Amino acid sequence: MTPTTIVAVSIEPFDVALTESFGIAGGAHAIAKNVLFRVRLANGSEGIGEAAPLPAFNGETQALAETALRTLEPLLVGKDLRAWRPLVEATREAVSVASARCAAETALLDGLLRHQQLSMHTYFGGAETSLRSDVTLPTGSVERIREVMPQWQKLGFSTIKIKVGGSSVDDDLARLRVLAEVAPEVAIIADANAGLTEDEARRFVRELRQANLSLALFEQPVAKDDLDGLCAVSREGVRVAADESAWSLASVATLLQKKAVDVVNIKLMKTGLEEARAIVALVRAHGGSLMIGGMVESSLAIATSAAFAGGLGGFAFVDLDTPLFFTESRFEGGYTLEGPTLRLDPEAFGHGVRPRVGRVAPPA
Amino acid sequence: MTPTTIVAVSIEPFDVALTESFGIAGGAHAIAKNVLFRVRLANGSEGIGEAAPLPAFNGETQALAETALRTLEPLLVGKDLRAWRPLVEATREAVSVASARCAAETALLDGLLRHQQLSMHTYFGGAETSLRSDVTLPTGSVERIREVMPQWQKLGFSTIKIKVGGSSVDDDLARLRVLAEVAPEVAIIADANAGLTEDEARRFVRELRQANLSLALFEQPVAKDDLDGLCAVSREGVRVAADESAWSLASVATLLQKKAVDVVNIKLMKTGLEEARAIVALVRAHGGSLMIGGMVESSLAIATSAAFAGGLGGFAFVDLDTPLFFTESRFEGGYTLEGPTLRLDPEAFGHGVRPRVGRVAPPA
Repeated sequence: MTPTTIVAVSIEPFDVALTESFGIAGGAHAIAKNVLFRVRLANGSEGIGEAAPLPAFNGETQALAETALRTLEPLLVGKDLRAWRPLVEATREAVSVASARCAAETALLDGLLRHQQLSMHTYFGGAETSLRSDVTLPTGSVERIREVMPQWQKLGFSTIKIKVGGSSVDDDLARLRVLAEVAPEVAIIADANAGLTEDEARRFVRELRQANLSLALFEQPVAKDDLDGLCAVSREGVRVAADESAWSLASVATLLQKKAVDVVNIKLMKTGLEEARAIVALVRAHGGSLMIGGMVESSLAIATSAAFAGGLGGFAFVDLDTPLFFTESRFEGGYTLEGPTLRLDPEAFGHGVRPRVGRVAPPA
Repeated sequence: MTPTTIVAVSIEPFDVALTESFGIAGGAHAIAKNVLFRVRLANGSEGIGEAAPLPAFNGETQALAETALRTLEPLLVGKDLRAWRPLVEATREAVSVASARCAAETALLDGLLRHQQLSMHTYFGGAETSLRSDVTLPTGSVERIREVMPQWQKLGFSTIKIKVGGSSVDDDLARLRVLAEVAPEVAIIADANAGLTEDEARRFVRELRQANLSLALFEQPVAKDDLDGLCAVSREGVRVAADESAWSLASVATLLQKKAVDVVNIKLMKTGLEEARAIVALVRAHGGSLMIGGMVESSLAIATSAAFAGGLGGFAFVDLDTPLFFTESRFEGGYTLEGPTLRLDPEAFGHGVRPRVGRVAPPA
């Protein structure tokens, strides 16, 4: 048996209450229900990855992710991790739950890189050692915006992402007006999570313009498959990002070929790491811009995305804020947070994240 | 200064006579005129890469590659190799000669991986530890085919690539008939290197069919920019590969979107490693097939391509035969050759190739 042979895997669902209900157009969640996946090697080293299924985003659930990950043990145990790509491909063939695929791929790559004492940040290219994230205002009331903005401003956030499409366009317009009133200095990203019709989205953009409000970015205004709608909103003169519509390399190729959007929001929970890496190259080859985002992810998945985006470099939009909404940290390491800034560690092994002692059970 | 700081680079042109003139549709070369590029790190370790410019393929020359590589010293010396992606991007912005870009990127990645004691094969995924190559019959006479085929058959080659388009279609048809007569057991790839018109290419396919001869693959029958011609040849019922037409990630995206070809020939000398890696993912996402090829490359560049293709896995066509045409080996390591089979070493550091002592000068 080689030192890099996988001897055990473990699957540990974990729930963390959020500081406030995280609402998007498709629904709201008060608790993050994620899954930790570990692989242990013969030499005692370990790789870990997180599945962060988000029912309101695409219907994936903790139960689906957990069930999917449980099927992987016979595919992985006994295999040499140096042949990691066939293992990643085997997991992708075995399970269709994207967040479970991402957890497995993350754990495999992390295990290999820890063994090699190489940081995931250097593996992906070592380009940038810090990233500046936005912070999110979930769907909700005008009053809630007035309540929470002072703390985000005090922490130094200069880009605010506001979730829209959860109620009427008029309600959202009112929320945008209040946001611009209380924080005139910030750049605003509106994210409809596929919750608007083309007409609603175009009206939203036009009324904002009439109110002298400008969006830095309008994310996924219309339904996932409505590429004509994305094109139509782009023609309104606002930068548009695809998120739900950019769910695979092939879907991004189609978006770029149709020139439907200017920006692609890359989330490892949609595609895993290798496919996301190819999406980055493809978007760049077409002159598009990059965003890195996440589901409702703990610092484990966020550190992975930060190593990915910082290593590759050149991401124009960074949306890695969800650990700010977690009431407790199950993990430590990977990056340090200074207000909106994630500082990465090029000297870490793998993504550098460890479960906090006593917070998550060790592998069986 | 960190251990991974680049302290020196060197550029060493080297010429190697070939065992026979290597003829393709665009011209023939009796001598390989390539360039060795090295980066030396503060800790004494080194990374090396080869530029194999091929004038008959795309007009690149040894002088162009050498001049391009000489401009890179101020961009690289003093930089930390852990931030390798910005260095690769800087070299790509500084020089447009694709083979020089490939040499620089190879040397940078090799240097990093040697420092980390990680093989390039494992870095790319560790999928397959051996590759089975075809061997090439350059343009030339019918008699030459009768002369050389016995040695290739004795060595066990089961796929023969024959260069066509260098003279008339009738001459090439005669060469194909002789090849099929002396080696009825082999699979045949015809490679026109963009040397035929659409009409010529279609006639070639039809006359072969009338003679009961089938091609395993027809590579780049028509001009680089003639995508309609590629489509037309594909409609003749033969598998078509793009080579000259597949010169970048964006060009491959267009080929796939037009469904112009079934197979993409990936050559690191066209795109470098990172762009090639994204091309592999894109071709797979569209259900296409992969070929790995090269220019007239020594074992240094071939070992790099072998680590790439073997690491990624799943290449349906392997065309890594050019070291067989070199009258001497300037390098050692990287892989071992058993007839048509390249055996890779997952335990190597980097691509594992070293200059043979006394054969290439050390860096200044």
